[in-house]
This record gives sequence, C-alpha cells and structure tokens, in this order.
Amino acid sequence: MQNEDTFDLEAYLSEKKAVVDTALKACFPEPEGLASELVSAMKYSVFAGGKRLRPILCISAAEAVGGVETDVLPVACAIEFIHTYSLIHDDLPVMDDDDIRRGRPTSHKVFGEAVALLAGDGLLTEAFNLMTLPELTDKVSAGVILKLIGMVSVAAGYRGMVGGQIVDIQSEGKQVGLPVVEFIHKHKTGELITVPLVCGAILGGGDESQIEAVSSYGRKIGLAFQISDDILDIEGDTSTFGKQVGSDEQKGKLTYPAVVGLERSKQVQSELIEAAVECLHDLDKAAEPLRHIARYIIERNK
Amino acid sequence: MQNEDTFDLEAYLSEKKAVVDTALKACFPEPEGLASELVSAMKYSVFAGGKRLRPILCISAAEAVGGVETDVLPVACAIEFIHTYSLIHDDLPVMDDDDIRRGRPTSHKVFGEAVALLAGDGLLTEAFNLMTLPELTDKVSAGVILKLIGMVSVAAGYRGMVGGQIVDIQSEGKQVGLPVVEFIHKHKTGELITVPLVCGAILGGGDESQIEAVSSYGRKIGLAFQISDDILDIEGDTSTFGKQVGSDEQKGKLTYPAVVGLERSKQVQSELIEAAVECLHDLDKAAEPLRHIARYIIERNK
Repeated sequence: MQNEDTFDLEAYLSEKKAVVDTALKACFPEPEGLASELVSAMKYSVFAGGKRLRPILCISAAEAVGGVETDVLPVACAIEFIHTYSLIHDDLPVMDDDDIRRGRPTSHKVFGEAVALLAGDGLLTEAFNLMTLPELTDKVSAGVILKLIGMVSVAAGYRGMVGGQIVDIQSEGKQVGLPVVEFIHKHKTGELITVPLVCGAILGGGDESQIEAVSSYGRKIGLAFQISDDILDIEGDTSTFGKQVGSDEQKGKLTYPAVVGLERSKQVQSELIEAAVECLHDLDKAAEPLRHIARYIIERNK
Repeated sequence: MQNEDTFDLEAYLSEKKAVVDTALKACFPEPEGLASELVSAMKYSVFAGGKRLRPILCISAAEAVGGVETDVLPVACAIEFIHTYSLIHDDLPVMDDDDIRRGRPTSHKVFGEAVALLAGDGLLTEAFNLMTLPELTDKVSAGVILKLIGMVSVAAGYRGMVGGQIVDIQSEGKQVGLPVVEFIHKHKTGELITVPLVCGAILGGGDESQIEAVSSYGRKIGLAFQISDDILDIEGDTSTFGKQVGSDEQKGKLTYPAVVGLERSKQVQSELIEAAVECLHDLDKAAEPLRHIARYIIERNK
C-alpha cells in the first residue's frame, strides 16, 4: 500500500492493468478448428487497448474493504467481456456506425458485420461462463456467485446497459431534456461502472455500509465518466481520444453539454467527483486508489 | 402419466406448451418507461408462436428421471430466451436476412435492426438472470445452479451455438463436405437441444447413467431435428412451415440433403431417431414422452 502523499495513480493503474490483461489472456484458448475466426474476433476486441477501468474498479473496491485481487479477477474479466461485447455491437453500422475505436478499426471493419455480431454474442455468453469456473468457485461460495451473476445480468441487460442503449439510439437527433440524457448515461454507462465496484466490495468481504458506500461512489463516478466522455468529444484531441472528436454532434447524439452547456457540464462533473469521494469517508487508506481514480476521470484526456 | 398404448403426444405437447407459455409470461414485467419498446420487442419474439421444443424437452427429461416440472421451469425459460435471441440475430440482414419467421414478420422488420439487435442482447443477458431468481434458488442448491449456468453458457457460446453459426455463415455458397455440415448442425442446433435435456435430468435428480442416456438421446435428436429442418426446406409447404420453403438452396446454405442427397438424409434421420430411443432403454415409462418426441421430429411438417 502506497502512502497517500506519494500515491502514484499512473503506476497503480498500469500495474493493475497488467494483472487484468494477464487474467484476460488466460480466459481464451488458442484459436483452433472451424470456429477459430470467431475466437480471433473476440480476442481482437478484448485486446484492443482498453484501459481496463471496470476490472480495475472491481479490484480497487475489493482492496478498499480488505479483500485481495486474485479473488475478484474472474468477475472483473467477465465484466470486461460484457463491456467489450457492448462496444462491438454499439459500433455496428445499424447502431453508431463507428469505424475507429481506440485508434484501431472496429471489429466489423476487420471481420465483417456477421462475425462482429457473433463475436459480441460470444463474449456476452462467455462472460457468464467465466463466473462458473473453479478459479472463482474454489474461493467463493456458490450462493454469493449466483447473487453476483444476478446483479451483473441486471446491470448489463434491459433494465441496465441495453436499456440505456435503446433510449440512446431512439433519442438521436431529437430534442429531449436532462432526464432523458441522465437516463441514458446512468443506464448505458453507469450501471456497468457501478456493478464491478459492488461485486468487488462483496467479494472483498465488505459489510453492508461499505458495499453501499462503494455503490453510491460508483453511481456518481459513472455519470461523471460519461459526462467527461461527452466533453472529450468536444474538447479532446482525436489522436489521443482514440475516436473521432465531434462525432456525437455530427450524429445528433444526446450529450450532457448539448443539453446543459459545456460550463455547467464541467461543474456537474466536478460536483459528482467530490460527492463520490465523500461517499468513501468511512473507508480507510485502502480506499485511496478509488479516491484517486475518481479525480482521474475528469483529468483524463482519453 | 398416460399409458404407452394410449399416449397422446399432441395433447402432451399442447399441455406442456401452455405451462411453458405461462412461465414465460411471468418472466416479463409490463413494458413501461423509456426502454419500453425494448421490452415489447423482446416479448414480440418470445411470443411469436414457438413450439417450445427446448423447454418441453427440459421438462420431459426431468419427468423421465422422476423429477417435477415446476423445478425446471426457470431453466427451461432461460433456454427458450437464448433460443429466441439466436433467432432474432440469425434473421438480421447481416446474417440470414429473413423477413418471415413462423409466418410473422421478423423482429427487425417490425422494430428496425437496432432494436432487434438489442432485443436479442437483452434476451441473452436476461436468460442468465432467470437462473438466479428465487423461483429456482429456493428449490435447487446454488452449486447445482452454477453448474447448469456453466453448461448452458458453453452450449450457447463460441464452443457451441455461436460457433456453429459462424461456420454456417462462412460456409455459405462454398463446396464443403459432410464433416462441416455435421459440425454446423451439431453446434448451431444440437447443443441447444441437448443442454435443456441434460439440465432437466440433473434438476430431476437423475443419476450419472440417466443423465448420460438423456444427453446421448439429445445429441441424436438434435442432429435429426436439423436434418428434418433441411428436408422440410425442400419438401415442406411454405404456409405450414412458417418460413419460405427453398430458401436454403437460394442462399447457398449448407444442408444435409445438399451434401448426401435427400434419400440418404431421410435414412440417417431415421437411424438417428431409432438410436436416440435406444439410448433410453434403461429408463421406465416416465421416459415415454421423450420416445414419442423423438419420432415426432421426423413426422412433423413445421
């Protein structure tokens, strides 16, 4: 554990990202046989330069309540699989029609739309398989794992992320108010940022109040994260951001700045981050990474 | 339990279908709120006139080993959700591009491609949620449920159904041999016919040899079912079959008759059904519905 004064977030994120990447690699067999292109497409998107924010949040939440990294890695990887599938489907021509993601061609540009669709389906399905393997079941009771599978499926499904995506698509080019934008952001992005935190806190052995604290923190940074994404789409640099800056406006996407303005968006974002950090006030120094990650969300440039 | 001599399969299937339909209806809330069209699209496809073969096989397998219907319904519904999602994605223009399924317009023709894609994603995700609810967890140990979630995700994912779909898509219009056609049929169709049977036998309290018997039965009827689908595409009646007869050939689809001929296909189909029934020789009269369902597969006309 690093001292608060000397906490090096960059080193922390880089170290945790390496741990997550190693765990993700172990989730795949070598592509072989007739369906090998499918596995190649799944791997292409999982290893496409993601920051691993969601798995890292899962680990950090576990450690914040006294748990250990190795116990949460299968769930962290499962959630990264779900995040990755959602990006593949989101990038398809019938959805956002994006050719570039994180500076690389999107799945359907490389493999074609049919393979991209199926790679997404394969990742979503495999996410649930990852939560049934001995790596997790040897350490965590089956009852707790089932509860986590329930929470992850609600967060990712029609009540959560997929519900946010449909409202996002249906609202494109329409004049809607703040409640709709917040619904989209909270569901499409927020749910899959909150759920790894809650899973991490549960797996780490957190008590009720600690789990609730981490959950509230998640809902606040989740919304702040999406607002920051909207702001980056206006103010960011295409080469750093990894996707085309200005594409939201071009597509008539509902964004926070489009509804409340850029300055007010920045203000809301800052307030959310401070409130998120405040949620953790009863947690000790082990929660320091979570506090730093919250602040990093509005300071990042990609 | 009906007597073997007087067993009325039609009445049995109709009674079980009604039970499954009621259970499926209970899986959905009333559509409301911003994402209501998503729920409408999910319901549209789940209640689009399916025969409920997979859920009925799950129930019949449980009853064949002495179990009861109510204990397996959540898993039966979950598998029907997965089957339904696979049809929605399969019908999309980037896949098979089918406008009609079971005599009704396909999801994307009614709701548009984006909503259809997301309805499929929502159903797949919710399938796993269904297996974590009290209806199941109150009756079955969490350890057993986790094992079933693992089996279902393998059968539905890249090692199973999705793996079969990619090879199917990639082989269209190509000259390939019987091993590739059998790979497609066994993965794309067979896995999701075998897994409800195995889940049913496990939930019904079957012993190792009973589970293995039902599993072998499933692999055989699964292949026979797809061969019969191929045959119906040649010999069936469009209005009864519910989709365009002759569409396989038109799309350059790999079918069993295209590779081995129609007569040989019918012969293989009959042999598979007899072998499937033979797998059940150690099971008593409670397995009678499974024996009749096997024969029905080659006698059906839709």
